[in-house]
Amino acid sequence: MTYCLGIVTRFGLVMAADSRTNAGVDYISTYQKLFDFSASGNRVVVLCTSGNLSITQAVITALEKDLKFKEDHNLHTIDSMEGIARYVGNKLREVQDRDRSWLERDSIDARCSFLLGGQLHGEEAKLYLIYTQGNYIHTTKETTFLQIGETKYGKPILDRTLNFDTPLEAAAKCALLSIDSTMKSNISVGPPIDLVMYEKDSFSIRHQLRLRLGDPYLAKIRKLWETYVKKAFDDMPDIEWEYYESEEDILID
Amino acid sequence: MTYCLGIVTRFGLVMAADSRTNAGVDYISTYQKLFDFSASGNRVVVLCTSGNLSITQAVITALEKDLKFKEDHNLHTIDSMEGIARYVGNKLREVQDRDRSWLERDSIDARCSFLLGGQLHGEEAKLYLIYTQGNYIHTTKETTFLQIGETKYGKPILDRTLNFDTPLEAAAKCALLSIDSTMKSNISVGPPIDLVMYEKDSFSIRHQLRLRLGDPYLAKIRKLWETYVKKAFDDMPDIEWEYYESEEDILID
Repeated sequence: MTYCLGIVTRFGLVMAADSRTNAGVDYISTYQKLFDFSASGNRVVVLCTSGNLSITQAVITALEKDLKFKEDHNLHTIDSMEGIARYVGNKLREVQDRDRSWLERDSIDARCSFLLGGQLHGEEAKLYLIYTQGNYIHTTKETTFLQIGETKYGKPILDRTLNFDTPLEAAAKCALLSIDSTMKSNISVGPPIDLVMYEKDSFSIRHQLRLRLGDPYLAKIRKLWETYVKKAFDDMPDIEWEYYESEEDILID
Repeated sequence: MTYCLGIVTRFGLVMAADSRTNAGVDYISTYQKLFDFSASGNRVVVLCTSGNLSITQAVITALEKDLKFKEDHNLHTIDSMEGIARYVGNKLREVQDRDRSWLERDSIDARCSFLLGGQLHGEEAKLYLIYTQGNYIHTTKETTFLQIGETKYGKPILDRTLNFDTPLEAAAKCALLSIDSTMKSNISVGPPIDLVMYEKDSFSIRHQLRLRLGDPYLAKIRKLWETYVKKAFDDMPDIEWEYYESEEDILID
């Protein structure tokens, strides 16, 4: 399983991914799932991948190949983030066309998805989620984050804390905690965690981080988080129970 | 969708359920999903239901019918919680046998599950999860809670706070927050919330509660929780970013 997320606020972009891949519980490996294709000073383009590894690797390889050999149409030449989303979606469709029937023959799940974040000159910082089918959606001011993979465990913390005005460093901490919560609840999501924070209009990524297993910072924020959660419980007002005399009264409206 | 959970600690049992049922987003209704079959002073038996409503209702109806007409073998006469779990599982198998092929014909999901919690004289307080197939598992000292329905959003908070030594009132607050987190992240889980707290060896439920939409206590704990989450973020140590000079260094191990 995988968990990747991206956040866009008025201050820029945060993207994060875990690195665990599993083909059943008895085959767990580490693969990087966050790929930085930025051309520093010129454009920021970051991809995160989730789902069938052979397909996502084939797509990443195709993108790299175009960067090398296809000068007129690649991640560094396409002139809008929406154009890049469509281009990545089309690459994904090509790989699906080629491999999918072979996978389905053995009931292998061919689904996968991508997060695409970044900024091109003349545009705002943007974040897209590209589906297995090659179509895509993007964040808005109302919905500032997108997730792929094992998304549910880490969503409540995002729902409770993020909005378009959240400072970038706070959004980055929130992303780390969201991944940490997911790692705690699902062992098939695991470190190292890759994290990038991009300040809009800077056109280069100045803040990035790889947190390995047992990283002291990760241990520190996990401990702090748990302390606060416990403190919140201690301070929570007592439940005002309803008292009933006979069992007939119970749970009848 | 549904979210129900149960917790067993050394002090007793907590069970909670939401009340929203949906057949597609355009057909949302309210149905009670927590059913108290206790015989006060004698035994505590509480069931929560999740999944196909026609099937769970048919099971509950069958249990009620036995209570009325089958004096030798019902929820009040079976002499162990494990026996009750098997009995409920068998009722579920009967309904599945009768209805399942008709549902599958129209690709309707016949799956459902039950939480069964309570205590009989001569036993500890116990909690079972009964699956669609009629088999079941129970909590242990290491794994003190069980969930059915939309389980993922509300799991991290349980993972971080609960253990076998958690006081009962704290477990009840934790259950409420777990449901509140789920309601915030999935609109198909919704109020009223039913909550029961049972002190072991008392053999009657003295604490129960129904929290309706807009209930001031629910609003209060949600607000307090969000305040603490934000405080935790403010207090979190700054991320120690790795700084790179050239883009080639980025994310290469």
